[in-house]
Amino acid sequence: CYSSQPIKCTLIPGDGIGPEISAAVQKIFAAAQAMFCGALQVPVEWESVDVTPVRGPDGKFTIPQGAIDSMNKNKVGLKGPLMTPVGKGHRSLNLALRKELNLYANVRPARSLVGYETPYNDVDIVTVRENTEGEYSGIEHEIVDGVVQSIKLITEEASSRVAEFAFKYAKENGRKKVTAVHKANIMRMSDGLFLRCCREAAEKFPEVQFEERYLDTVCLNMVQDPTKYDVLVMPNLYGDILSDMCAGLIGGLGLTPSGNIGLKGALFESVHGTAPDIAGKDLANPTALLLSACMMLRYLEMNRHADIIEKACLSTISEGTYRTGDLGGKSKCSEFTNEICRKVQSS
Amino acid sequence: CYSSQPIKCTLIPGDGIGPEISAAVQKIFAAAQAMFCGALQVPVEWESVDVTPVRGPDGKFTIPQGAIDSMNKNKVGLKGPLMTPVGKGHRSLNLALRKELNLYANVRPARSLVGYETPYNDVDIVTVRENTEGEYSGIEHEIVDGVVQSIKLITEEASSRVAEFAFKYAKENGRKKVTAVHKANIMRMSDGLFLRCCREAAEKFPEVQFEERYLDTVCLNMVQDPTKYDVLVMPNLYGDILSDMCAGLIGGLGLTPSGNIGLKGALFESVHGTAPDIAGKDLANPTALLLSACMMLRYLEMNRHADIIEKACLSTISEGTYRTGDLGGKSKCSEFTNEICRKVQSS
Ligand SMILES: CC(C)[C@H](C(=O)O)[C@@H](O)C(=O)O
Ligand SMILES: CC(C)[C@H](C(=O)O)[C@@H](O)C(=O)O
Repeated sequence: CYSSQPIKCTLIPGDGIGPEISAAVQKIFAAAQAMFCGALQVPVEWESVDVTPVRGPDGKFTIPQGAIDSMNKNKVGLKGPLMTPVGKGHRSLNLALRKELNLYANVRPARSLVGYETPYNDVDIVTVRENTEGEYSGIEHEIVDGVVQSIKLITEEASSRVAEFAFKYAKENGRKKVTAVHKANIMRMSDGLFLRCCREAAEKFPEVQFEERYLDTVCLNMVQDPTKYDVLVMPNLYGDILSDMCAGLIGGLGLTPSGNIGLKGALFESVHGTAPDIAGKDLANPTALLLSACMMLRYLEMNRHADIIEKACLSTISEGTYRTGDLGGKSKCSEFTNEICRKVQSS
Repeated sequence: CYSSQPIKCTLIPGDGIGPEISAAVQKIFAAAQAMFCGALQVPVEWESVDVTPVRGPDGKFTIPQGAIDSMNKNKVGLKGPLMTPVGKGHRSLNLALRKELNLYANVRPARSLVGYETPYNDVDIVTVRENTEGEYSGIEHEIVDGVVQSIKLITEEASSRVAEFAFKYAKENGRKKVTAVHKANIMRMSDGLFLRCCREAAEKFPEVQFEERYLDTVCLNMVQDPTKYDVLVMPNLYGDILSDMCAGLIGGLGLTPSGNIGLKGALFESVHGTAPDIAGKDLANPTALLLSACMMLRYLEMNRHADIIEKACLSTISEGTYRTGDLGGKSKCSEFTNEICRKVQSS
């Protein structure tokens, strides 16, 4: 039997469909767990935390300390979708978590699913997004009435860190090329600095190809021939856009995992919405969260476990008998989940 | 015969393939011109100007005054692609022109071409891009070593102006809906101001539908179902990205026209590159520049002329006998051009 102590992971089930897709992931992990002494036993133990916003000392709503503490202790977590509370004084909880935990690289693989048709085949792109600064600095001023400035902040530290992460990721995952995406023809200093950091990182990884492309050019090429790209690295906002585009190419946010990697820990999350219209009806597709959980397993160096669960999930989709409504199928979330459990246990 | 005086238009042939595609447009206009007293006679006279950069008083290279003077006098111009000079001290000439002439709205229609297949049918989107400020303010600082800020500047004046332009354009062109594209969830103040201006403009045009969408959501939807969108209005950088994406959906920048509209004049341009590899070889596709010239005719209220030339161009492409290499054909630029001339003259 797997001898090591199970690793505790924080679980933030989230809002809307969050709890049911989180339960699906737990069920699939438990199915693996339950296997008698199989190599597949996933030595992960969940610590569920609640992130219903609480009012902080500054009067603003924020993440409850318990959730932060859990993440700081466990270092690794999985998160379902969170509703952004409406009204002034609310910051996005997703962003608060990324910032609070200093999760500097946002990694989003998008790979065409075999058997699930879109106009694009063979998409296999990983966006690596700077996750702490850029256009997301939060620094804004109204200079005079009707004149506002927002500051895009680019630092050498954050840029080098994420650039090196991208190359390291490419190397470790057998990828061939890293493309730095920028508008240094316009933002010569800020994107220029980002680009310089990418060039410097590229020199440290001569085994990985490097190219530089304008953001607008990448957007154009992406809809014409996404197979041009492999690993993309870019400032925060560009990553927000391109990762969604890539998700769109393969079928949407319901199918793409994501990981936020920090110096001291990592949080994996599905980046689709809370889908309140179907919440609680056993109709949601847990794929994005399950694939995020597999990314988490890889982060924990449980590659074999990740491979088996991922394969069970992807082959269930490609076979087509058990598909949820978003993929044109008629299966309930629980039926889809059970089929994955079955496949995991018979693998 | 057409009695009014011909209208003088500035022509900036541009670099690379610029001169040959400009000559193609002139030839097609002349073909129309030559028709004996036909309703089609295009009362346009070209004033060709050179924009080879000259060194300005500040030591930086810039547009020669002659070109600016011509545009200021004629108020209307057509421009081929310009090479961006390499090296420090060079600003993009494209941007310099937009700024110098205060061309506040960049309009780029992208419509699927009948008979030219892409994975998308029925794309019919017009992006209206704020063209003077935003992320293109040019204001950047290195605060300390390795820490750079770029300023995104959003003003009520420029935002309202472009928002109202978008609604007016929608109304006058029989379009149903304007979508404001933003990231006001992140840049609450700057994109928030832009969005408020769009909402205010929307109220003045109750006959046009209005919706607000996040930039990332639009990027995702765009690759899945671009027919969701009609007219899009947005800050500068978002327009740079989305207009290229839309162009990609219908076949690329070689097929999409563009107009830069100002308070006192307008400059129409093809936004593809200079294609130095095929320059001078009679291989270029003049479609983007010709369609831009048709936008110019519409701006001059010569709608019938525009319709006839545009139809001749689009039907030549859709018939498929005369297509340039970029569209998978074997025709020379001159053969394609001659066929359009023939169609114009027999219409
Ligand atoms: C929810 C939102 C604040 C977030 C972002 O803009 O980063 C989302 O779009 C994402 O990509 O995770
Ligand atoms: C050439 C470049 C400066 C320009 C821009 O970024 O606006 C181009 O991409 C465009 O869209 O016209």
